Amino acid sequence: MSETIKYVLDETQIPRFWYNIVADLPRPPEPVLHPATHQPIGPADLEPLFPMALIQQEVSAERSIEIPEPVRDVYRQWRPSPLYRARRLERALDTPARIYYKYEGVSPAGSHKPNTAVAQAFYNKQEGVRRLTTETGAGQWGSALAYAGAIFGLEVKVFMVRVSFDQKPYRKALMEVWGAQCVASPSTETNAGRQILAASPDSTGSLGIAISEAVEVAAQHADTKYALGSVLNHVLLHQTVIGQEALAQFELANDYPDIVIGCTGGGSNFAGIAFPFIGAALRGERKVRVIACEPAACPTLTRGRYAYDFGDTAHLTPLVKMHTLGSTFIPPGFHAGGLRYHGMAPLVSLVQELGLIESRAYTQTACFEAGVQFARAEGILPAPEATHAVRGAIDEALRCKKEGVSRAILFNLCGHGHFDMQAYIDFLAGKLEDRHYDEAELAKSLAALPAA
Amino acid sequence: MSETIKYVLDETQIPRFWYNIVADLPRPPEPVLHPATHQPIGPADLEPLFPMALIQQEVSAERSIEIPEPVRDVYRQWRPSPLYRARRLERALDTPARIYYKYEGVSPAGSHKPNTAVAQAFYNKQEGVRRLTTETGAGQWGSALAYAGAIFGLEVKVFMVRVSFDQKPYRKALMEVWGAQCVASPSTETNAGRQILAASPDSTGSLGIAISEAVEVAAQHADTKYALGSVLNHVLLHQTVIGQEALAQFELANDYPDIVIGCTGGGSNFAGIAFPFIGAALRGERKVRVIACEPAACPTLTRGRYAYDFGDTAHLTPLVKMHTLGSTFIPPGFHAGGLRYHGMAPLVSLVQELGLIESRAYTQTACFEAGVQFARAEGILPAPEATHAVRGAIDEALRCKKEGVSRAILFNLCGHGHFDMQAYIDFLAGKLEDRHYDEAELAKSLAALPAA
Repeated sequence: MSETIKYVLDETQIPRFWYNIVADLPRPPEPVLHPATHQPIGPADLEPLFPMALIQQEVSAERSIEIPEPVRDVYRQWRPSPLYRARRLERALDTPARIYYKYEGVSPAGSHKPNTAVAQAFYNKQEGVRRLTTETGAGQWGSALAYAGAIFGLEVKVFMVRVSFDQKPYRKALMEVWGAQCVASPSTETNAGRQILAASPDSTGSLGIAISEAVEVAAQHADTKYALGSVLNHVLLHQTVIGQEALAQFELANDYPDIVIGCTGGGSNFAGIAFPFIGAALRGERKVRVIACEPAACPTLTRGRYAYDFGDTAHLTPLVKMHTLGSTFIPPGFHAGGLRYHGMAPLVSLVQELGLIESRAYTQTACFEAGVQFARAEGILPAPEATHAVRGAIDEALRCKKEGVSRAILFNLCGHGHFDMQAYIDFLAGKLEDRHYDEAELAKSLAALPAA
Repeated sequence: MSETIKYVLDETQIPRFWYNIVADLPRPPEPVLHPATHQPIGPADLEPLFPMALIQQEVSAERSIEIPEPVRDVYRQWRPSPLYRARRLERALDTPARIYYKYEGVSPAGSHKPNTAVAQAFYNKQEGVRRLTTETGAGQWGSALAYAGAIFGLEVKVFMVRVSFDQKPYRKALMEVWGAQCVASPSTETNAGRQILAASPDSTGSLGIAISEAVEVAAQHADTKYALGSVLNHVLLHQTVIGQEALAQFELANDYPDIVIGCTGGGSNFAGIAFPFIGAALRGERKVRVIACEPAACPTLTRGRYAYDFGDTAHLTPLVKMHTLGSTFIPPGFHAGGLRYHGMAPLVSLVQELGLIESRAYTQTACFEAGVQFARAEGILPAPEATHAVRGAIDEALRCKKEGVSRAILFNLCGHGHFDMQAYIDFLAGKLEDRHYDEAELAKSLAALPAA
């Protein structure tokens, strides 16, 4: 029997529609509130930041939203992405489980992020925007938007969280090769950044701070809009091409996942793979267990509160109902910078509240151990973020072994780790340490949640 | 019309045979000579270094050599690799040329090198070898063999040229994640290395030195054999899957290349894409211009002599007839470390002697300029080695523009540059300088060529 099993779709099978889970949920998402008035906001309130097409997607309850042909055309460069059966990993684990992974690292930027970056760049270009600002953690999102900007001819300015900016100079270089500008956040270029630096000159930054900076710049310039790499409904929507392709690939495999696993930071790659399967379950087609794997050092789903909170540190964004550690919470620096966010996508938070998903938190050493085991068996080096999903999949596979049952496990290998090698160097040298947040600071941050 | 044009083959179209150009050449390759006796060697002389299956391929004159099913099975992880039409680049250049590129960076190690690494690891494993030694320049080959070793369960020890070892710590980390051991060359672990260090304690190393070290270790241990990433006939043979797939993809495109371009260091990726097209021309099927693009700082094909020479610096290897700058020539350190070799594959040298290919030399700043232009247009970041082919393709496309003719240009994008970002950082900062070899040293090295 073949050891390498790859389920390939041809390019006519790139999805023609994004899947909107809102249409299938038993109750609608909670309204988004204005940061000043705490009243529900309308599309006009978001217009300084986003093009109208994306605002409409943000509030849509339609099940299927058509993917514009120019976006599908760019997707064609790397989509449909492959679905692999991890037979060598199964053998290494000696498990009866059937492990599958969807590999999104085949995109030019090396992760799932271009799925939405390309869509966002397209709509902004179409509405006459000249420049986009954004934040990035580990750099996966920043480089994806830089790539999309190069394709559609948009200027891109990226505020990169200081701790990752210092750890990953090559990510910055990648953005610059694509023509984008990348600065460390907190920066002296914005009021938000200057305020943080005044209070904490050595701030390592956070996604919450970087979002404040990017939003501030976009709000001040008529030709500039803001792009977010996760959290928002329209971003999760764009990622559903992943799960839709996986559904088609499982038909080829003549199998169906019992368990679907993704890592969660803001929630976009997780939603991308999971929502189409959750939707199928909600429509009565087939049940599935879904597990969100998050970092123990920033445990939004497992330790956060489901409450209204700001998306950023400077409180420039609207309030959304989500699992949050509080917008003033600054997670310790760890290598999966893309998961280092105080909040969680409102739609992911809602499906957890509805009991449709489970969540668990992993320490980074446990994740890198899984990442190295995966790389040696399957030959692909996972991004630090993706190692959380690998850890979750290996744990479920080992449970299958213990229980003597064969289950089909699908996880999203959302990106490769080519720009995260320092983390692997530290891990292999035994120098990688688990980082812990301060319980007292978390309590303080949760206590400061706005009353909405 | 679609902007993204990708020609995709399904996995049943992975070639079943490697193509051996020897069968179609008007004269046979020159014999390989014993380093001591200068007499033609037989298979038994190579047995301490290579498994018999590879030795047989090395001397074969059969046109087609069957690819073992376990090798095709591993190829399936990333093959067939895509052929793209570079429409965005064509538009950026405003050229009537039709530019195509075959993208080998989709392999787990990020280059074409696994095409032969997987085959070599398979044959060694089959013949009971426990450990492989090898050299690597920029690290593309070392990491490819580390990957193949992980897949087939072989220990791998890599001697990495010092200048690249220092420039590219992340390549070493990648090899180690896959379980290989990587040391800087010249090292203190071998006689060859110690001799070089005694004479030049600050030696930046060279592929020639690293080969000496790897060969020495393999020759001394019965359970250890040596693997070479380029130059030899069997290595070039394994790479012909690239050109064979490209031929099938041009049928899909209903087109045929007027010009085929590859970069050359040892010659393997160039041969991989070019030999199947040259073979078709030799069999009278269709004519094609073929251009080898090499670094001006190590201009083997454009400045070397066609003569018998050693493959390594310490003169442990047999003598082969090739274009060479002399085995004592140490090229200056530059970023395309994979092209930093004093010799050239005997088969590539022979096809140049036969007038079947052209060659040209490019400086590294001209190459990186092309690489950045390509990345901004097409979204893929080329390896420094591959930028030589990009430069060649862009120059031919600009010539089409000048002459007002449309030609089809195919080049091999043999790898991505994810582990070569420091070179891009230097280029973008204006700090990348062209490196020149010393004319007097070249003359001395050429004068020292052995009389064979």
